[in-house]
Amino acid sequence: MQKLIEKVKTLTEALPYIKKFHGKTVVIKYGGSAMTEDSLKKSFARDVVLLKYVGMNPVIVHGGGPQIGKLLDKLGKDSEFVDGIRVTDADTMDVVEMVLVGKVNKEIVGLLNHFGGKAVGICGKDGGLIKAKELRIEGRQMGHAGEVESIDASVIESLDTNNFIPVIAPVGGGEGGRSFNINADTVAGRLASEINAEKLILLTDVEGVKSASGELLSTLTVKESEALIDDKVAEGGMVPKLNCAIDAVRGGVHTAHIIDGRVEHSVLLEVFTDEGIGTLISLS
Amino acid sequence: MQKLIEKVKTLTEALPYIKKFHGKTVVIKYGGSAMTEDSLKKSFARDVVLLKYVGMNPVIVHGGGPQIGKLLDKLGKDSEFVDGIRVTDADTMDVVEMVLVGKVNKEIVGLLNHFGGKAVGICGKDGGLIKAKELRIEGRQMGHAGEVESIDASVIESLDTNNFIPVIAPVGGGEGGRSFNINADTVAGRLASEINAEKLILLTDVEGVKSASGELLSTLTVKESEALIDDKVAEGGMVPKLNCAIDAVRGGVHTAHIIDGRVEHSVLLEVFTDEGIGTLISLS
Amino acid sequence: MQKLIEKVKTLTEALPYIKKFHGKTVVIKYGGSAMTEDSLKKSFARDVVLLKYVGMNPVIVHGGGPQIGKLLDKLGKDSEFVDGIRVTDADTMDVVEMVLVGKVNKEIVGLLNHFGGKAVGICGKDGGLIKAKELRIEGRQMGHAGEVESIDASVIESLDTNNFIPVIAPVGGGEGGRSFNINADTVAGRLASEINAEKLILLTDVEGVKSASGELLSTLTVKESEALIDDKVAEGGMVPKLNCAIDAVRGGVHTAHIIDGRVEHSVLLEVFTDEGIGTLISLS
Amino acid sequence: MQKLIEKVKTLTEALPYIKKFHGKTVVIKYGGSAMTEDSLKKSFARDVVLLKYVGMNPVIVHGGGPQIGKLLDKLGKDSEFVDGIRVTDADTMDVVEMVLVGKVNKEIVGLLNHFGGKAVGICGKDGGLIKAKELRIEGRQMGHAGEVESIDASVIESLDTNNFIPVIAPVGGGEGGRSFNINADTVAGRLASEINAEKLILLTDVEGVKSASGELLSTLTVKESEALIDDKVAEGGMVPKLNCAIDAVRGGVHTAHIIDGRVEHSVLLEVFTDEGIGTLISLS
Amino acid sequence: MQKLIEKVKTLTEALPYIKKFHGKTVVIKYGGSAMTEDSLKKSFARDVVLLKYVGMNPVIVHGGGPQIGKLLDKLGKDSEFVDGIRVTDADTMDVVEMVLVGKVNKEIVGLLNHFGGKAVGICGKDGGLIKAKELRIEGRQMGHAGEVESIDASVIESLDTNNFIPVIAPVGGGEGGRSFNINADTVAGRLASEINAEKLILLTDVEGVKSASGELLSTLTVKESEALIDDKVAEGGMVPKLNCAIDAVRGGVHTAHIIDGRVEHSVLLEVFTDEGIGTLISLS
Amino acid sequence: MQKLIEKVKTLTEALPYIKKFHGKTVVIKYGGSAMTEDSLKKSFARDVVLLKYVGMNPVIVHGGGPQIGKLLDKLGKDSEFVDGIRVTDADTMDVVEMVLVGKVNKEIVGLLNHFGGKAVGICGKDGGLIKAKELRIEGRQMGHAGEVESIDASVIESLDTNNFIPVIAPVGGGEGGRSFNINADTVAGRLASEINAEKLILLTDVEGVKSASGELLSTLTVKESEALIDDKVAEGGMVPKLNCAIDAVRGGVHTAHIIDGRVEHSVLLEVFTDEGIGTLISLS
Repeated sequence: MQKLIEKVKTLTEALPYIKKFHGKTVVIKYGGSAMTEDSLKKSFARDVVLLKYVGMNPVIVHGGGPQIGKLLDKLGKDSEFVDGIRVTDADTMDVVEMVLVGKVNKEIVGLLNHFGGKAVGICGKDGGLIKAKELRIEGRQMGHAGEVESIDASVIESLDTNNFIPVIAPVGGGEGGRSFNINADTVAGRLASEINAEKLILLTDVEGVKSASGELLSTLTVKESEALIDDKVAEGGMVPKLNCAIDAVRGGVHTAHIIDGRVEHSVLLEVFTDEGIGTLISLS
Repeated sequence: MQKLIEKVKTLTEALPYIKKFHGKTVVIKYGGSAMTEDSLKKSFARDVVLLKYVGMNPVIVHGGGPQIGKLLDKLGKDSEFVDGIRVTDADTMDVVEMVLVGKVNKEIVGLLNHFGGKAVGICGKDGGLIKAKELRIEGRQMGHAGEVESIDASVIESLDTNNFIPVIAPVGGGEGGRSFNINADTVAGRLASEINAEKLILLTDVEGVKSASGELLSTLTVKESEALIDDKVAEGGMVPKLNCAIDAVRGGVHTAHIIDGRVEHSVLLEVFTDEGIGTLISLS
Repeated sequence: MQKLIEKVKTLTEALPYIKKFHGKTVVIKYGGSAMTEDSLKKSFARDVVLLKYVGMNPVIVHGGGPQIGKLLDKLGKDSEFVDGIRVTDADTMDVVEMVLVGKVNKEIVGLLNHFGGKAVGICGKDGGLIKAKELRIEGRQMGHAGEVESIDASVIESLDTNNFIPVIAPVGGGEGGRSFNINADTVAGRLASEINAEKLILLTDVEGVKSASGELLSTLTVKESEALIDDKVAEGGMVPKLNCAIDAVRGGVHTAHIIDGRVEHSVLLEVFTDEGIGTLISLS
Repeated sequence: MQKLIEKVKTLTEALPYIKKFHGKTVVIKYGGSAMTEDSLKKSFARDVVLLKYVGMNPVIVHGGGPQIGKLLDKLGKDSEFVDGIRVTDADTMDVVEMVLVGKVNKEIVGLLNHFGGKAVGICGKDGGLIKAKELRIEGRQMGHAGEVESIDASVIESLDTNNFIPVIAPVGGGEGGRSFNINADTVAGRLASEINAEKLILLTDVEGVKSASGELLSTLTVKESEALIDDKVAEGGMVPKLNCAIDAVRGGVHTAHIIDGRVEHSVLLEVFTDEGIGTLISLS
Repeated sequence: MQKLIEKVKTLTEALPYIKKFHGKTVVIKYGGSAMTEDSLKKSFARDVVLLKYVGMNPVIVHGGGPQIGKLLDKLGKDSEFVDGIRVTDADTMDVVEMVLVGKVNKEIVGLLNHFGGKAVGICGKDGGLIKAKELRIEGRQMGHAGEVESIDASVIESLDTNNFIPVIAPVGGGEGGRSFNINADTVAGRLASEINAEKLILLTDVEGVKSASGELLSTLTVKESEALIDDKVAEGGMVPKLNCAIDAVRGGVHTAHIIDGRVEHSVLLEVFTDEGIGTLISLS
Repeated sequence: MQKLIEKVKTLTEALPYIKKFHGKTVVIKYGGSAMTEDSLKKSFARDVVLLKYVGMNPVIVHGGGPQIGKLLDKLGKDSEFVDGIRVTDADTMDVVEMVLVGKVNKEIVGLLNHFGGKAVGICGKDGGLIKAKELRIEGRQMGHAGEVESIDASVIESLDTNNFIPVIAPVGGGEGGRSFNINADTVAGRLASEINAEKLILLTDVEGVKSASGELLSTLTVKESEALIDDKVAEGGMVPKLNCAIDAVRGGVHTAHIIDGRVEHSVLLEVFTDEGIGTLISLS
């Protein structure tokens, strides 16, 4: 009995957080290990459904790099990369879209529904959610690798209103019905600004943002974040993530979080504990 | 970190219960030690606010026997009792009403609000909630000791709709504006039927219903409950509680629970664990 | 027949007033003789229910001085007064709250319901309506005698929407769940500003505000009212009432009225005749 | 002052009736002297606006016989009558429609608006309110004199919802857009059934229904009413009025009233006094 | 079959226009030949009902000059005209109102309903739609010839919301319930501004606005329109029509159109083709 | 001009059909040539968007056989077929889901949006739309080839309410999150019954149902349809289509249509002409 009492006591400890975030929207970029390791997948799905049931509105944006690579390999297609971004021809885009929308997205939907959620998976073409255009990197045309031109979030709002959990594949639609593959972090960040999210949570495979001396930085202001980039303390894949967090916070999102998706229940740890996990970026 | 992970894991274990009771109404008769011991009072308030925030509609009905006695003593008024029920003259009723409505009720409201709820305390006269009439025991008129004649729950529904937690003092209104003191268990049971509650929870100062050999009975059907009364296994104060549970379940309440209010977080233990606590009474 | 015709003709004479105040809110401070003499109590209750049925939203705030004194006497408790305000220790506050919330408030509710209204009685602690803090008079701490810190009128609006008549006892809630006894005029005035009331009506036991020469002043501007105070023409209990009216009008209430509650149907006389009754205070 | 008190006291005497009929619909057939004498017109308009403001939904159906006759005379058109009903050719129908819809209806609308109502005048063709067909009397075709085939009251409900007072000219639309002149009593009765009216009030130029010995009959059951017709006690114009009342009551209207429109404020006398005026017909 | 395919293909060609004007309001001044020639009347009615069914909100304002003249002739009444406007005495106004409201308006309602619409005909007195006052031309009082003082479009909005098509006779109500005959173009223009119409369409019996050399001008800016008036290129009846269009466009209507009502389906041609018909006036 | 008049006249000819089907739901099974030939794809998309804009609720269910085969070929996977249905192992199901959900579905969404619709593409797993289970054919387990167990159309209704056009890939979700490939005709039929569709339209690559002598049968009752199957007049792929139509009509769909998708604008021809196209199946 005493053990059960301890358990339910834990529930009441979550009460202040539940109150604080009641009715608030949380955009979660889902990717990395949290999306590939079986136990992490399950703990993530449970976390998201719990957020929904205790009164928040989680919105999931997912990536899908590894799965895309596997199918391209099977089909014997090579890709060129510029600055880590795939130059995407029409055939490759077909594969990208099929994997992201037809496989990865639906697996996440299936998992969330299995744990009691009512998830609906869409991509940026549905309901005109994401209007996209071709990306150019230093003048180089990237084919079907695109960037967000504008967002019309009415389909998200309609799903939220009806208590569905939106799961979004980062594929946008452009002129003449062309499809574009867009970076999932960017989609999550832009969407979070657009729907006035309380939090943007980016799941990564690192502990968080680190100082020059290698220590985890628990909180950063936007200015400190920019300094880390300018001073080249933040490098590689962390730079776009930091930029995405900075843009979201400047765009009205209350806090952005770069957290370690390799930790079980990382999303709940972020939302339901004072310590949080990873790095929190806020205006000041 | 591992400790925090264990904590949030506990949250996800509550998910099946949260889903099951989402949007459901739970009527709780609050009384006994849970209403007098300081730490139990706080754990009870936390529990109720948590139920509200995770999507249930808790409705509290409280008693107030000991506090009434104290003030009557101070004022030097004696009372006669018939079958444990106070023969209530007009002056005594004044004291009863002041204590229940003006003291006990508002303490509970204050406590719930302190823990983040938005509680509103009313009595059965407000909004015409409880129409009452004089109780007679074996022909004996009991003065202002009354019984429920009918219930108009529109004020409860209006408070629920606006996310307030209703806290109800068991005082009804009768002909010519007379006040009646009514047994709180009965009010809770009748109200639970009227508003189609999922659960009726009666907080007591015993472990639950016991068998002839003194063992706690975890589950009872309505028929078994009636047999316990007929066979005089259930005696004393347990009889009216059992009858109240039986009536509620027959009136459409899904399950009634007679639980031990002396245990910390007893309400959450009942709602959020499979084992539950005390005795569950259901139709079959 | 002719007599009946005269009667219904009177109804049509009320039409211009009914149109003018349709859908408007009227906050009435109820106290004095109107709350103690039986026939006045009944005529007041009828008036309020009528206002509700012809389309206005009456909100009642009541005092309770004499009744409090009586119970304190019975319990042998003395009180010290500073500037007419009771220095209120914890035990005294208990009595104050019991009398105001548990007795006076419910009597009013009962009376309104008897005449066909659907009244709901609450105090300032319910739904977090009135946040209060300790009053200080010239540095002297007044214990549980408090003043309004802020008002959250959502519970009033929810009751209005559902056609209940709110009846409010002037007890607020402070830090740590402490109760505070607040002047009822002040509560009525603050609440009237907060909910954009059309009228604030203060029932008193005098004819209205009088000039230096002792004549009743039918109308006053805010400036004239302030001059009466500055020039010490208005004295004693009239000063806080005038200040309350001034604050309400400055806070957006259209007109404030200090009227004679000893006159039968004084509220209807104020609302439904051009002559009105007592003193009207308006911006200019 | 005492006189004013008497006046407002009268208002409170109306309270029981206001409560009883709150939210109820009252269909009034308006005609006869009440529609031609200036002071009666005004008292009628005031009555109707008052009913609306105290929470009822008055619906007016009017006739217009005399005014039609005048214009036909001016245009030098004679009419043949069968059983008191005008055999209506196309040219005559033009005049009927112009007078009823373009003159009488708009005068009533103007009067109601002058006294503060928001009246909207329509005829049975608007919004498909009344589908009509040609009347036949003993095989004789009556041209554009028609009878009600069916009613679609959605336009009335839409006006009610938006707090307009519907004023209806008894002209229906038939096959191929033909117009039909219909008896206004019949339209009022059928409409009252269709919209579940609480009362049907027929304004006439007699005191009410009388017994064989010439005494006014204050109340009649449907069966007694039928007996009066069968026994030829009720004769002439009273027969169709009684039949209309009988049909309405059988069709679900609570009470039908044949009252004396020559008495000032006859409608209010009927609604707001126990004595009423004229004859009340009810099921039993 | 091929012919049917051609037909449905035509439907899809209308799609861009249907999308563009979906949910938009179109005020149409209906008059001239389109209101007198049988086949044009039918094609007009079909057009309006179609607009409603494909998602627009058509609002019809009609005139009625010729029909008024006919009845005045029959009754032997002469009228004096000033600047083409009838000096209207009380008797004449009676005739005007009867013809416009009781005859012309209801014919249009009947026709629209015949083709499947749900039309409701009202005049400016209904629901207080048009408040009017006496017109003066160079100091000369025009009797019941009036001008718009203000508009309260709530009755139009209520009809629109419930999917009725409002049909409005240009008769306004003034002080003391007086009726005023107002120019229908002006009513249409003012109403279009008031309800933020997308389009104002004036049906006339000419091709449109012409240049000095007699060529049809397909599009005009407000400034060009004013120049045409200043330079006396536009003359006679075209001047008030142009002024009305100018005022509407300045008042927020997107485009005003002066089109040839003698052409079958002129309204559809205007709405559903790029070429349009007649003259379009816009801000720039 | 005359040509334009002819065109808009065609619009008005559609009016009776627009009225008849206003607010009605039409489920369209989209497949065959209409989904592969470029000009047919465009004419189909225009048709669907037009239906939406003129007030119907089109719901699209699509197949995708050929595209699935292509990718399986590329990946070198063979399939066994039983009764024309693919025995689907896990790897094959992955390909099926990617092609249907990630490619075919999004192409249709893109096309509809290009022509001005707001389409949202989902599969049966989204929002728990289709619960499926494994199909067995004569005892043979078919792997991931499934059948409909139950339908929860709340996600469709939510999309309809917000004016989105739902486009559904026939993939259902089963126990443990398994995916099932289901026959698209069946999904369309079951869904049509579930949401009380007015029409079920099955696009095929034949003219319609034919008689024994090879003539096209324009209309069939359910009984006649069953006879055609029993008598083996209907054979091959037509049998399941007929059964699907029969089930839908028995399940409450008003009419089912087997039409020739090779004809341009076949959907509009069916909805907007009396002749229709293909075969109509109705109850009697």
